[in-house]
Amino acid sequence: MITSTSNPRIKQLVAWQSKAKERKKDGVFLAEGIKMLSEAPASMIKEVYLTQDALSKIEDPCKLEKTGYEIVSEEVMKKASDTQTPQGAIVVLKRPVYTLEEILKKENGLYLILEDLQDPGNLGTIVRTAEGTGVDGIILSKDTVDIYNPKTIRSTMGSIYRMPFLYVENLSETIRLMHEKGIVTYAAHLKGTCFHYDFSYLGATAFLIGNEGNGLKKETADLAKSYLKIPMEGKLESLNAAIATSVLLYEAYRQRHSSI
Amino acid sequence: MITSTSNPRIKQLVAWQSKAKERKKDGVFLAEGIKMLSEAPASMIKEVYLTQDALSKIEDPCKLEKTGYEIVSEEVMKKASDTQTPQGAIVVLKRPVYTLEEILKKENGLYLILEDLQDPGNLGTIVRTAEGTGVDGIILSKDTVDIYNPKTIRSTMGSIYRMPFLYVENLSETIRLMHEKGIVTYAAHLKGTCFHYDFSYLGATAFLIGNEGNGLKKETADLAKSYLKIPMEGKLESLNAAIATSVLLYEAYRQRHSSI
Repeated sequence: MITSTSNPRIKQLVAWQSKAKERKKDGVFLAEGIKMLSEAPASMIKEVYLTQDALSKIEDPCKLEKTGYEIVSEEVMKKASDTQTPQGAIVVLKRPVYTLEEILKKENGLYLILEDLQDPGNLGTIVRTAEGTGVDGIILSKDTVDIYNPKTIRSTMGSIYRMPFLYVENLSETIRLMHEKGIVTYAAHLKGTCFHYDFSYLGATAFLIGNEGNGLKKETADLAKSYLKIPMEGKLESLNAAIATSVLLYEAYRQRHSSI
Repeated sequence: MITSTSNPRIKQLVAWQSKAKERKKDGVFLAEGIKMLSEAPASMIKEVYLTQDALSKIEDPCKLEKTGYEIVSEEVMKKASDTQTPQGAIVVLKRPVYTLEEILKKENGLYLILEDLQDPGNLGTIVRTAEGTGVDGIILSKDTVDIYNPKTIRSTMGSIYRMPFLYVENLSETIRLMHEKGIVTYAAHLKGTCFHYDFSYLGATAFLIGNEGNGLKKETADLAKSYLKIPMEGKLESLNAAIATSVLLYEAYRQRHSSI
């Protein structure tokens, strides 16, 4: 059992937890909680830290024999955790590597293109809903919030392990490439005259989602093949970005799965 | 200009900001920011506090002649604000009073029934989306998070001023009353065998939404007239409560407004 917060492994763990740069340098990310541990693919797990109490709550502890684990004191866990009430489990995982080619290879795929989203919780919720609606991959502009932010990881509820995604240097270039592959891009935009449910999303589809406060950049919106609007009653000017994304994704899902 | 944080009005303002009980006792709530001020109905405004800088940014300052306002120093604003980077405007508002009778009087109304939701941001986002989809009123169980929580107010983006809502002591009783009035209640539930888009929401409709972690209480779920499921691909077990609510509301909206 590790009981000292000055143990070199714990120091490294704290550095990963608190510094995005440190995580990036070592190609890792951290997930917390028993649920996040139990859903982690064995192939991605590098290290597991557990309190005695958390270990006793794990349903299938045999799974941990493959990956190995360290028991740490409650005090060490508190120091290493990102949350105020730690659940007693921290996993260090290898970052998955996806390629654009892999992500785009699906016939009639469903995609999200996120430009400069800033709220970690919004991004995590979007990743979660994307898995739920069968999205084939998420493209993120380089200035989108870090998907490995602890709050984002938490909000994905495990979808981070399964949803392919890719940060791209040049979003316009990627969108042009998607168009070449026959993917139709839709932007929720003031220019839109038809509602989101007026379009057919049976073919290869990508939804462009902009920054929470400012929406899509003009040059990005200009690239979209179609403009849609999500209807809004009352005095509403916009929806929360994660809500708008989910409404679009579930409409695509409905069209793709409902027989009438 | 008020420059002292020990000014009695500022002391009262800080008490309202920090204590839910104090707000409740005086029947007020607080909203922050220039947008929240500009959307506030004059009939609800009791007091307005502005920094000189915020005053200069207000598009229609004449509106403030009716309600009156106090200029406060940046330091006083910082003390009274709920946020780390205050926008320089705080409004004190009278709480609106809605009755169940008023809320339910609409023919073929669309309603939400929220049971024990705990996340203030989720609740605010739900109020916002509810306005956007033409919801006629929101019923909240008595153990639902305070709708006047500063984070909830912020997340509503102004919808708090316009969306009728009511906390009820006895949720089961209210649901029974809604049934008597011909409102069909739908619960997203494991018992559901049909997807949410299989049902028709053209008639009077209420969606039952449960607590983020535990879902609906058994006694509440047992009361629902219909069980539905929201489809989920992958390994997803649930959606964020605000996402699930929005997906249901936009499906109802689509059915009510789309001609084909």
